[in-house]
Amino acid sequence: SLVAAETPAQPKTSSTGGQATFETLLVTTEDNITTIVMNRPEKKNAITVLMYNEIKQALELAANNDCVITVLTAYGLGSGNFYSSGNDLNNFTNIPAGGVEKMAKDSGDLLREFVETFIDFPKPLIAVVNGPAVGIVVTLLGLFDVVYATDRATFHTPFSQLGQSPEGCSSYVFPKIMGNAKANEMLLFNKKLTAHEACNLGLVTEVFPDSTFQKEVWTRLKEYAKLPKNSLAFSKQLIRGIEKEKLHLVNNQECERLVERWLSDECMNAIMSFFQAKSKL
Amino acid sequence: SLVAAETPAQPKTSSTGGQATFETLLVTTEDNITTIVMNRPEKKNAITVLMYNEIKQALELAANNDCVITVLTAYGLGSGNFYSSGNDLNNFTNIPAGGVEKMAKDSGDLLREFVETFIDFPKPLIAVVNGPAVGIVVTLLGLFDVVYATDRATFHTPFSQLGQSPEGCSSYVFPKIMGNAKANEMLLFNKKLTAHEACNLGLVTEVFPDSTFQKEVWTRLKEYAKLPKNSLAFSKQLIRGIEKEKLHLVNNQECERLVERWLSDECMNAIMSFFQAKSKL
Amino acid sequence: SLVAAETPAQPKTSSTGGQATFETLLVTTEDNITTIVMNRPEKKNAITVLMYNEIKQALELAANNDCVITVLTAYGLGSGNFYSSGNDLNNFTNIPAGGVEKMAKDSGDLLREFVETFIDFPKPLIAVVNGPAVGIVVTLLGLFDVVYATDRATFHTPFSQLGQSPEGCSSYVFPKIMGNAKANEMLLFNKKLTAHEACNLGLVTEVFPDSTFQKEVWTRLKEYAKLPKNSLAFSKQLIRGIEKEKLHLVNNQECERLVERWLSDECMNAIMSFFQAKSKL
Repeated sequence: SLVAAETPAQPKTSSTGGQATFETLLVTTEDNITTIVMNRPEKKNAITVLMYNEIKQALELAANNDCVITVLTAYGLGSGNFYSSGNDLNNFTNIPAGGVEKMAKDSGDLLREFVETFIDFPKPLIAVVNGPAVGIVVTLLGLFDVVYATDRATFHTPFSQLGQSPEGCSSYVFPKIMGNAKANEMLLFNKKLTAHEACNLGLVTEVFPDSTFQKEVWTRLKEYAKLPKNSLAFSKQLIRGIEKEKLHLVNNQECERLVERWLSDECMNAIMSFFQAKSKL
Repeated sequence: SLVAAETPAQPKTSSTGGQATFETLLVTTEDNITTIVMNRPEKKNAITVLMYNEIKQALELAANNDCVITVLTAYGLGSGNFYSSGNDLNNFTNIPAGGVEKMAKDSGDLLREFVETFIDFPKPLIAVVNGPAVGIVVTLLGLFDVVYATDRATFHTPFSQLGQSPEGCSSYVFPKIMGNAKANEMLLFNKKLTAHEACNLGLVTEVFPDSTFQKEVWTRLKEYAKLPKNSLAFSKQLIRGIEKEKLHLVNNQECERLVERWLSDECMNAIMSFFQAKSKL
Repeated sequence: SLVAAETPAQPKTSSTGGQATFETLLVTTEDNITTIVMNRPEKKNAITVLMYNEIKQALELAANNDCVITVLTAYGLGSGNFYSSGNDLNNFTNIPAGGVEKMAKDSGDLLREFVETFIDFPKPLIAVVNGPAVGIVVTLLGLFDVVYATDRATFHTPFSQLGQSPEGCSSYVFPKIMGNAKANEMLLFNKKLTAHEACNLGLVTEVFPDSTFQKEVWTRLKEYAKLPKNSLAFSKQLIRGIEKEKLHLVNNQECERLVERWLSDECMNAIMSFFQAKSKL
């Protein structure tokens, strides 16, 4: 399977989240906040198959521990650090025994289950976007409850450039948030948003200067984590419950469409061009 | 019942809306406009059980009279006047014979029927927000057709601070209007919006300087009230009809959730703290 | 029928879209873009019965040809040119043998089928709004994927002034895009938006200075048309598919309501006043 084919890089550090150790994440719980940190900074936090599974596992732990709020963010090296560059395209280069059909099907299953974890997450979930974000980590933002971003962040979903189609429920949630006229420039025509543009369109809650980003955001998050735990969880579930069935339907349709896309000539040619361009650098 | 337990303050004035006299409201019909004025300024127009019932009754009169548009606004004393400070927490201090369970159930029924009246209102309904607004009068704004606000208005829904959860269909309508990332900072994390923020997020149609607010708004409303009555009513019903079933479902779920919340330790402790803090002033 | 009653003006030019010639449109396919140009500039591109049918036919050709994207725009004369002044009210002056009931029913069928073509259009559809837009061409914008506008454009839907009610799925799509508080000022109370207002509300993707409008927009469109064709079409269908059933339901309800409206005294009087005012100029 794709999971077996994955060869994880040596982890920078190990972190215990109570029951588990992660190779691609740092997971801590403190002051009623469980924080999940994507930790492949030398690869711009591109998401490998292992990392999809570890994020899913870390969210399941947070769903069941005593934390009041849960945060997804990323570890960066220096001033050019990324939130995440999205799906690691190397996920497509390890062809399993079943061939590309098997790889596409496995990838579709992996993605669907990954997104399901965000749809069903029962507590307030907050994204702390510390730098540029690409692909799946952008489309997923519509499933977070609050999104804080540094003014250095950008938001880019270049699906059609790669012959692909939207995921993370963005085909439903983005038009809902910002209307078709704005959403389609991102989802169809690859427009990259600045942090302030994303904030004006409602994808981001608030933008902070990079120099004070971490301080201002964490001051606020620590206040949130002191609020009544059950009131927050029940309120979030009330809000999410109204469209949970539709979100699962959308997620299924998006993943089915992507499996077809991954097997199309358009997509295969686009990904091949990506690697050829990269090898020439 | 809660209604019987209510001891209304002496009304400032009595107003006849044709068939009815109100203790907590001023209701008039002139120039094709029925205007419902919340009239407990010395209590910041906090909504008692009687006032919930009177607003409901006044809306039912407006729905069936000859008015073209209906306006909800408030009477204020001086420059610090409120639109409304929301649910009067004294509603929770008169425990009926059936105990707190009976009180919670009655309050849930009262709220559900109150909100139903706004969902089903068949004509253009306009909020003229003349000052700060808190709680239920904010969440209800998503059920109005047009919302005009003075620049002195603020919009605050401190549910989780009080161990409660959203009502007035805000758990569905707020994310629909402004997206999750913006709505949840209000609904989960108690963010208070300025009038201009509320306008940018789509909760408010337009903001006016306080000094010219009444004049500008009423000039406009009088023009609206000259438009073809049936065209307006049928257009509003067309727009509302598409989501009426969903709004009733949401209202039911919100009220069920609140009845549970009101009986929770989190909520009881939060309300007790509120009164203790108040008694120390 | 209304179609037979229509006497088209002499066409300015004839254009072949492969299989068809149009009297009210210019239709061309070049650089993977099919462009449909409304071509009654001396009538502000008011839409006659023939023009409804020709736009429908041109969209059906574009849906089935090899183009990657499809554009609707208008031909204008000089600096005062319109995108379109909307439904040509002369459509209501040719009463068929079946009387006004027959006319209303035929008009409802025509409108419903016209709007269905936009709901079902399978490729990215882009509006290039080169000047003021009124009525049906405004309400339809919510069914486009991207909307570019000159800063000279305005957006006006004066339904209630004419005793009518919203169409083009605007009763559902406008509140979805901008929230009720903003949408109803347009749909109920005839507010005319500037291009920048429409852009801030999400109805328009981006606004350009009139002097560089055509150059900037077409540079961008030609880039879009080089993207993988199937990826774009499947992505658009994924996004549209989620609400297609609801859009058809809304379209049916809006057309039923309009047929009733057209037969009402309010509407007949309003249209008669329109022609009387016009004849006095």
